Amino acid sequence: MTQPLRLGIAGLGTVGMGVVKIIQQKAEILATRGGQEVVISAVSARSKDKDRGFDLSAYAWEDDPVRLATRDDVDIFIELIGGSEGPALAATQAAIAAGKDVITANKAMLAVHGQALAQAAEDKDRLIRFEAAVAGGIPVVKALTEGLAGNQITRIMGVMNGTCNYILTQMQATGRGYEALFEECAKLGFLEADPNLDVGGIDAGHKLALLAAIAFGTQVDFAAVELEGISAISIEDIRQAADMGYRIKLLGVAQMTARGLEQRMSPCLVPADSPLGQLEGGTNMTVLEGDEVGQIVLRGAGAGAGPTASAVLSDIIDIARGTRISTFGQPAETLSPAIKTASVTEAPYYLRMQLTDQPGALAKIATVLGEHDVSINRMRQYGHDAATAPVLIVTHDTLRATLDKALQNLPHTGVLEGTPIAIRIESV
Amino acid sequence: MTQPLRLGIAGLGTVGMGVVKIIQQKAEILATRGGQEVVISAVSARSKDKDRGFDLSAYAWEDDPVRLATRDDVDIFIELIGGSEGPALAATQAAIAAGKDVITANKAMLAVHGQALAQAAEDKDRLIRFEAAVAGGIPVVKALTEGLAGNQITRIMGVMNGTCNYILTQMQATGRGYEALFEECAKLGFLEADPNLDVGGIDAGHKLALLAAIAFGTQVDFAAVELEGISAISIEDIRQAADMGYRIKLLGVAQMTARGLEQRMSPCLVPADSPLGQLEGGTNMTVLEGDEVGQIVLRGAGAGAGPTASAVLSDIIDIARGTRISTFGQPAETLSPAIKTASVTEAPYYLRMQLTDQPGALAKIATVLGEHDVSINRMRQYGHDAATAPVLIVTHDTLRATLDKALQNLPHTGVLEGTPIAIRIESV
Repeated sequence: MTQPLRLGIAGLGTVGMGVVKIIQQKAEILATRGGQEVVISAVSARSKDKDRGFDLSAYAWEDDPVRLATRDDVDIFIELIGGSEGPALAATQAAIAAGKDVITANKAMLAVHGQALAQAAEDKDRLIRFEAAVAGGIPVVKALTEGLAGNQITRIMGVMNGTCNYILTQMQATGRGYEALFEECAKLGFLEADPNLDVGGIDAGHKLALLAAIAFGTQVDFAAVELEGISAISIEDIRQAADMGYRIKLLGVAQMTARGLEQRMSPCLVPADSPLGQLEGGTNMTVLEGDEVGQIVLRGAGAGAGPTASAVLSDIIDIARGTRISTFGQPAETLSPAIKTASVTEAPYYLRMQLTDQPGALAKIATVLGEHDVSINRMRQYGHDAATAPVLIVTHDTLRATLDKALQNLPHTGVLEGTPIAIRIESV
Repeated sequence: MTQPLRLGIAGLGTVGMGVVKIIQQKAEILATRGGQEVVISAVSARSKDKDRGFDLSAYAWEDDPVRLATRDDVDIFIELIGGSEGPALAATQAAIAAGKDVITANKAMLAVHGQALAQAAEDKDRLIRFEAAVAGGIPVVKALTEGLAGNQITRIMGVMNGTCNYILTQMQATGRGYEALFEECAKLGFLEADPNLDVGGIDAGHKLALLAAIAFGTQVDFAAVELEGISAISIEDIRQAADMGYRIKLLGVAQMTARGLEQRMSPCLVPADSPLGQLEGGTNMTVLEGDEVGQIVLRGAGAGAGPTASAVLSDIIDIARGTRISTFGQPAETLSPAIKTASVTEAPYYLRMQLTDQPGALAKIATVLGEHDVSINRMRQYGHDAATAPVLIVTHDTLRATLDKALQNLPHTGVLEGTPIAIRIESV
């Protein structure tokens, strides 16, 4: 046994306290596994006096996370504050400058500043580890960075926001609408303070950007993620998708194309009997595809104190064991800039629109789609009592840009009411 | 960049050639990820002259794997020969004695000699890595040893023999019987030379024993695995299970109980809509349950050149990166002896038997079960034209030993024809 490994923990919310609890209760097994005793030197949070249900009196207290991050008795700075800027970023930068390793659960900070932080850490021969930032307790960062390191990764996919998946699967299961379930999630505390982080796909987009950097050896580039949230998904789309053997998921997809890295976080139809289609409730799933390994699917809790603390502990024990791997799996200076590319992979699309009830309406729509090289695979028109009729179309493979041009021209037909819905059908 | 990392590869079957191919074709990305060039110094196989489709002339050839394992220009000995004894074991022991790290895909050797080999390696400050030995390309050894190292593992489960899962899911899908599918697998080359390794559960039992050692900090003990193969599963059981909402899987389960480590590899009923129940064909799945993380499910190809080579490469790159972790996740001398325990966890059981067509037959069976404290949850008797009637029973939770006593006494009733089938229903 060598010297103890000394932690400074900033942020004592549910995850931070989960980490404290594990270190207090499992000291012996952690030391056996890590080969080194793990101790907490100091902690920091906004309120010192809040009752957190655990005795913190043995640890030094710092009001300022930057002071915590630079203490002489801290070897690893554990950043659980959150937010891409502000104290989380300041303290992380200070920790690196002071020669500390950093463990963080902060997907937003890394999605925006990951390349600069990784470079800074490597200049100091220090580590940034972030298993807890992506998909909670699922060891997906490790699986991708280490477990599949012998592969050229061809595609990664993920359902990585439990709240969105809860809403979508509850719509499917109960027939309730998006708005009602959004309200329920707000009441249950399932939503971030800014709910757009969840339902707008931003949180999941951060995670996708981090995995994409590892998978494709590119500089993490959240700005290049095409984002589309779930708020436009109606119960009608959920039902129609199910009727055709699909489920609608907020799905992240990243793949390297001849024209650059494509990163999308958007609602997609996936086969109901696929692992992604079968994923219900708040559970997360990531799908990693490599040229040698084929498809690897990982499933587990994407949030919560226990699962997220489990991921933080995995990083702590790795450091205790002496494992030292570059932040994104290879030296930061070898990561290539991600070329921002519009979606260049073709896919079939599900379209739903309302047509006015007049002769030839459907033919007019089909004609416009055809003129724009969007060909129709399946079409359904439903009986109706109202002045408009719902029409469903599944296209053959097409580019999103091609489809968008066609959709922009549909209103000129004069037979369309409202705006058509278009959802990609992802082959999983 | 430091000195190249030099490999000696023994065994040039599909997996060995898969490793050679990746190292030839991906030299640059491997060096970038590993921080060290990876080169092959020497290879060994039974036949030097066989055309393997790749140019091996740049590598020294050794007829004797022991000589390969002890060459001065070899840093890592890669053992892909197979078999628990013989040249694989001799070469592995020689490699360790000569101060080499070892990477192996050999589940049989480690399941039998794992503790001694791990101890020998640690005495020399060397590593044994075996990601490829369990569930092919799924990085489950890494997930368990590293990703969930902050957890007390409560249970591990796995469908880890693709051939058995193929047979069972084909019985379900096509209605064909076990014998016909066994013959098909033999023709397709899906079976080991000794098919009992597959259908007897031995191969999957080896894998379970390895995972159990990591999960519970015990000395690997294959002899303590309760083994039951799939050859007694009939199409009738497959159908009845499906009718009640279950699937039959050859399922490995390991869990720590108050009376020691329980390790079982046996056919089980699992819910049809669970991830395990939905697993079709030759795919593998492992389920890891930890006190903090909850349930993590990993799914992927369990065999084949690409997936298995991917796992070997993961171990190579780990060593290149300087990752050094004890064989079973903690020092070999800290692993406790696994106490061989009969199954002490209770579960409901599915029973199927044929009763002679006489008044009171069913009552006699129910009485005997009741006398032995096996209580009945559900029972079904089917209409019949023959002299015997099929009866299905689902029990309440019971010990296997209790159930076995009851089953031994059933023939005394005189109403039973043949031997009753009993299959555990595992809560997953």
